[in-house]
Amino acid sequence: MAASGLPFDDIRELIAAMPGPDMEAANAVRARDANLTKPAGSLGRMEEIAEWLAAWQGKGKPAVDRPLVCVFAGNHGVVAQGVSAYPQAVTRQMLENFAAGGAAINQICAAYDLGFKVFDLALDLPTGDFTQTDALDERACVATMAFGMEALVGGTDLLCLGEMGIGNTTSAAAIYAALYGGDAAHWCGRGTGVDDEGLKRKVAAVEAGLALHRAHLKDPLEVLRRLGGREVAAICGAIIAARSQRIPVILDGYVVTAAAAILHAIEPSTIDHCIAGHLSSEGAHADVLARLGKVPLLALDMRLGEGSGAALAAGLVKAAAAVHSGMATFEQAQVARKD
Amino acid sequence: MAASGLPFDDIRELIAAMPGPDMEAANAVRARDANLTKPAGSLGRMEEIAEWLAAWQGKGKPAVDRPLVCVFAGNHGVVAQGVSAYPQAVTRQMLENFAAGGAAINQICAAYDLGFKVFDLALDLPTGDFTQTDALDERACVATMAFGMEALVGGTDLLCLGEMGIGNTTSAAAIYAALYGGDAAHWCGRGTGVDDEGLKRKVAAVEAGLALHRAHLKDPLEVLRRLGGREVAAICGAIIAARSQRIPVILDGYVVTAAAAILHAIEPSTIDHCIAGHLSSEGAHADVLARLGKVPLLALDMRLGEGSGAALAAGLVKAAAAVHSGMATFEQAQVARKD
Repeated sequence: MAASGLPFDDIRELIAAMPGPDMEAANAVRARDANLTKPAGSLGRMEEIAEWLAAWQGKGKPAVDRPLVCVFAGNHGVVAQGVSAYPQAVTRQMLENFAAGGAAINQICAAYDLGFKVFDLALDLPTGDFTQTDALDERACVATMAFGMEALVGGTDLLCLGEMGIGNTTSAAAIYAALYGGDAAHWCGRGTGVDDEGLKRKVAAVEAGLALHRAHLKDPLEVLRRLGGREVAAICGAIIAARSQRIPVILDGYVVTAAAAILHAIEPSTIDHCIAGHLSSEGAHADVLARLGKVPLLALDMRLGEGSGAALAAGLVKAAAAVHSGMATFEQAQVARKD
Repeated sequence: MAASGLPFDDIRELIAAMPGPDMEAANAVRARDANLTKPAGSLGRMEEIAEWLAAWQGKGKPAVDRPLVCVFAGNHGVVAQGVSAYPQAVTRQMLENFAAGGAAINQICAAYDLGFKVFDLALDLPTGDFTQTDALDERACVATMAFGMEALVGGTDLLCLGEMGIGNTTSAAAIYAALYGGDAAHWCGRGTGVDDEGLKRKVAAVEAGLALHRAHLKDPLEVLRRLGGREVAAICGAIIAARSQRIPVILDGYVVTAAAAILHAIEPSTIDHCIAGHLSSEGAHADVLARLGKVPLLALDMRLGEGSGAALAAGLVKAAAAVHSGMATFEQAQVARKD
């Protein structure tokens, strides 16, 4: 490939061409909101969500009629370092559990009538162990991002992003440490429930990865391909594609947010169409969200992944859209205004 | 009536006879939860909610099939003191809005498939202005509590409590000040959006009420009848009746919590079957919830009332029940356990 046509440059071009918010639509929502039968501001974040939907859907009357949860699954070479409490085979076993309807995310999607799609990202081909080599080469990284962009074909008006991948909180911790600095231990949580010895191995793996790749971590896309996973790359692609297709995005927890952090490090406004569905109890998620300027909708001490936090938040977002579009105005309801 | 048959004594007897939690049911949920296909504890408060439902429904397999939002509405004599931004007529106008389906609570109930009932508590007969007299006499107070108890007839398996009543945050502020002490200003928020002058009148009204009734505020039921409103009394009754009918309760915001605070002051365990649906941005709600030992499920900067925060939380509680009952176990899904 020619120097001018490097795949990562294509990604940078896509990001540079992203549309901004539709302020006319957001203002239409704000104007209508001021006439609804409630004290001004009394629905707090529910009002903000209606405006956010309008701004990023580009519709003065925002709607959530086809919400979708997309879960991307990948396997990680770094599990060879003993960083997870579960064997790598569990990634595929959980995909079978998703297909059979037995996982937590299946029940949440059913409860809130959310569509649900799962993408197997070459599970039989784990990424390289980032303590020894690059997780992905540039072509594979961009191809996986492109796959994530295609995942949205078929359409949705609210995208919840989720992931599955044994070992992927180690990858996320390495990404955060590369982007933000600080001790590896600060970024390493217990993931699926690793014990003290496993946590030490996890911290050591992140330290080893940072040492090996140190010279190449100034470029966030290099951080992604060297330390990330296929699901993180695909989620980056999905976030980018959602923006150009005018689909608001709900981020899940620690791993999904790592993809958002990569994009944010390239250009902060890249994730303006994304909200944080919840505050995970994994690792330093609160620290990450503060750096991204995102206030999570929910804080339920969850750390499951699978898009579960994003999907629960989607229940609130659906309600916010329904409240805004369904409420009567003072005039319609013949309710007196403030004295 | 005979000294031994005072109505308030009847209430105290009902409270003393309340059933406790069904620990066998809660333990059954915990045991099943440990086998579900997720890392232990990874669903955080969603797991706690499933246990809470089991304990108070008295069912090892908790379910939320008939959730119900009950909104109690009353009018308040204290509005004569200029404490609200809206005229008293709005209470009835909003009930008409509820009936027509135009309020926020209607949309939330539709979004989450919650039943919805509204109770008009003698709107044409406001309570006494507590700066001048008792809000209610003992008979009226107990009759209204009894009305609240009857409201549950027809059955539900999850009760969300809400209220409507111009002036009722002033009543709630007076109740908190009477129960917990401290400056009246600490307990007075802006309610529906009162301006600075109105807020001063609100604080003055609470101070006047406390001064007038000072000698009688040691008994929480006296606090209720002297400073409370009909909706607060009815909600006290509904909380008591829900307990004996094994119905878990979700509290709404500042005014509903005042009813819970009355019962908690009589005997803290009286509200063990209640969770706080949300943290209201009204007044000192965070302070109140801390005193009651309740961690709110949601914190969305809302202060609407109508049961809106409780109803949004019901969406999460429904999902928690669905997750617990619908998930596969490790054995069923053939997913490997921890290494």
